[in-house]
Amino acid sequence: MPDTQKRPRVVIIGAGFGGLAAAKALKHAPVDIEIIDKRNYHLFQPLLYQVATADLSPADIAWPIRGIFSGQENVHVTLSKVQSVDTERQVVTHESGDVFYDHLIVASGSSHSYFGKDHWAEHAPGLKRIVDATEIRRRVLMAFERAELADTSKEQERQLTFVIIGAGPTGVEMAGAIAELANISLRGDFRRISPDNARIILVEGGPRVLGAFPERLSGKAKASLEKLGVDVRTGALVEDVTGDHVVVAGEKIPAATVIWAAGVKVDHLETWLGVDTDRVGRVAVEPDLTVPGMPNVSVIGDAAKVPWKDGFDVPGIAPAAKQEGKYTGRRLAALVARKAAPSPFRYRHLGNLATIGRNSAIISMGWFKLSGFIAWCIWGAVHIYFLIGVKRPLFVAMSWVSNYLFRSKGARLITGMEGLRAIHLHVPKKG
Amino acid sequence: MPDTQKRPRVVIIGAGFGGLAAAKALKHAPVDIEIIDKRNYHLFQPLLYQVATADLSPADIAWPIRGIFSGQENVHVTLSKVQSVDTERQVVTHESGDVFYDHLIVASGSSHSYFGKDHWAEHAPGLKRIVDATEIRRRVLMAFERAELADTSKEQERQLTFVIIGAGPTGVEMAGAIAELANISLRGDFRRISPDNARIILVEGGPRVLGAFPERLSGKAKASLEKLGVDVRTGALVEDVTGDHVVVAGEKIPAATVIWAAGVKVDHLETWLGVDTDRVGRVAVEPDLTVPGMPNVSVIGDAAKVPWKDGFDVPGIAPAAKQEGKYTGRRLAALVARKAAPSPFRYRHLGNLATIGRNSAIISMGWFKLSGFIAWCIWGAVHIYFLIGVKRPLFVAMSWVSNYLFRSKGARLITGMEGLRAIHLHVPKKG
Repeated sequence: MPDTQKRPRVVIIGAGFGGLAAAKALKHAPVDIEIIDKRNYHLFQPLLYQVATADLSPADIAWPIRGIFSGQENVHVTLSKVQSVDTERQVVTHESGDVFYDHLIVASGSSHSYFGKDHWAEHAPGLKRIVDATEIRRRVLMAFERAELADTSKEQERQLTFVIIGAGPTGVEMAGAIAELANISLRGDFRRISPDNARIILVEGGPRVLGAFPERLSGKAKASLEKLGVDVRTGALVEDVTGDHVVVAGEKIPAATVIWAAGVKVDHLETWLGVDTDRVGRVAVEPDLTVPGMPNVSVIGDAAKVPWKDGFDVPGIAPAAKQEGKYTGRRLAALVARKAAPSPFRYRHLGNLATIGRNSAIISMGWFKLSGFIAWCIWGAVHIYFLIGVKRPLFVAMSWVSNYLFRSKGARLITGMEGLRAIHLHVPKKG
Repeated sequence: MPDTQKRPRVVIIGAGFGGLAAAKALKHAPVDIEIIDKRNYHLFQPLLYQVATADLSPADIAWPIRGIFSGQENVHVTLSKVQSVDTERQVVTHESGDVFYDHLIVASGSSHSYFGKDHWAEHAPGLKRIVDATEIRRRVLMAFERAELADTSKEQERQLTFVIIGAGPTGVEMAGAIAELANISLRGDFRRISPDNARIILVEGGPRVLGAFPERLSGKAKASLEKLGVDVRTGALVEDVTGDHVVVAGEKIPAATVIWAAGVKVDHLETWLGVDTDRVGRVAVEPDLTVPGMPNVSVIGDAAKVPWKDGFDVPGIAPAAKQEGKYTGRRLAALVARKAAPSPFRYRHLGNLATIGRNSAIISMGWFKLSGFIAWCIWGAVHIYFLIGVKRPLFVAMSWVSNYLFRSKGARLITGMEGLRAIHLHVPKKG
């Protein structure tokens, strides 16, 4: 049933960077906002790999959505999973009910794509959610534990081989961080194995690492990775992934731990909105980020295909989602106030950033290109800056500084699924 | 097969307070120590309830066993689950192999006891492990979410009713912390419900809360809890626990969240050691903490029944386990060095501590008895002191101070089993 309230209702699906920015931009607008997310927290994804490598805790980079909007009276948060959208009746159906919308903002993000090989997912988890990060952490740390207990040197080598598939920023950062975990953090912890004997292999189908960066910086990144002992293989296609090994460019590599950082896809939009989507599931939106033929439905963030320049689309990164969210929020505020609609969305590319281990980073911001330690300091400052106002940035900064200065051990807890399964299988005992 | 090494091998089962203290006391002894634990971390259990109530993160109160012994060359850590002990052949069998011991230290701790009603466990989780804490956190936070979405006021009330069974320190601390979560942390977060309408019921079968404390302090604790809005029911026996309600002293209380803080039991010792155990599974040890008739097997911590005074046993608390571990380590060091064995173990009771919410505590140390804010400051200082040298105490102190000063929201992430199950049921989507 259509809502009879006078204030227009804006429903936002997803509390990622795009959804949050849209809701915040509507703070002073006379609208009722309903944010629907199936998790109760917003996740600062750019630092998720540091949870996977045990440098940070989940709580350092995630915070409750309700807390963020505690002071914004026009926001109502619903913890539920969206099941369908009826664009005719203007209703979103979620697990706990229906909600009518005057305007819908779809900011539902993306998930991993295994390019049709979905059975690889089990053996090669990707890194999108907190559970992914803790699962990868568990696998990485358990591999060292299993190597320590291995009966044969062959099995020991297999346990100490880590393959990261995909050399975008996430893959590069994971490879660097695992190398440092093995070379530094775990030093002295084992008696039978030497963690720095670990083999870390970074596999990229394209011709170079960090394909979105200028070529010179790609070379620097590769050199930094190799200095950390990472075996970088570009132009190498993955042909198979099993629980025992991976096959890369015809070579069978026995490996216990495989991490997927290669592709993303967008789910549900075709069925939800009844529109065509591109190869990865994105909706090609109008210049004002609405869906063609549906002026009251906007799609933003990873879910939207927005043309940029030189035939490229706006990249699927946090700053882009934020800009699109802010634009959409402002546009709706203008519409509600019966002001002139803003001019079409224009993406402002702030640059590309990636870290390699604890004291090197790659920065490309327009004419400004930098790599090395100074770049790492800037990378840290930029991330701290983006955390301000949302989540305890001081804690994250302290973690970094203390990890850096004291080479501390970080949050190396093995929790997650195996531990949880153990509840039911084993009689509990105090640790 | 007996080991042929010259240095005696000490096997320690469990890396809790007792096991760690024993290993540390053997630091300079010419022995090989093998610590077997089924988890890779030591847990600072006294603060575990703060993880359950989202004030701290798991990584704040747990740290890798390997990291603790990284610099102690004679310690070997095995991440595995003990399956059996052969006291004739002096062999411990675990999931990944067998290990011979010259001396065995059993420091395996305790688990929850539901007094024979094991089917209550599912509805009333206890608080012993990190997964317990995150599960309780999930249930508590989800109850507010479900109340917000509830169709009827009856269901809303049921979701907002929290029953804590057992009023020892853990139960009292949980009740106080949930009251503060509802009254303070969640304030302003919901639109349909008012979290401070939550009913928190603390049920105790005995005549008073904190039964191990002097009577006057029990009264103070009760008053503090009632000031926070906790409904304290002493002399009230729990008769039934279901997923829908609990029955307390004949009264049926609809409640969605029930937390068990009542009883503990010790597992496995009878079968492992082939000895008689007491009602809760503990082994009555000799004055030197060895098992009667087995001079090379010590039992310490919660697993040991050690007489204290006035017919009481040494309590199952961290300082007691630490003292027993230290004593056992020193005793073995003396034996190995062929020095005189130390005099029998004597427990030094340091006192009892409990907090009630964020600015009140109850302290009883010999003649020194205190309650209120100053007691809370002492409680904090004592815990920070015990964390020093093991785990980032500065972070914990900062969390407390910032929670206290800014009434901050803490680590209110709903993760854990339901979220993990969701991996398999739902198509992943960015948060």
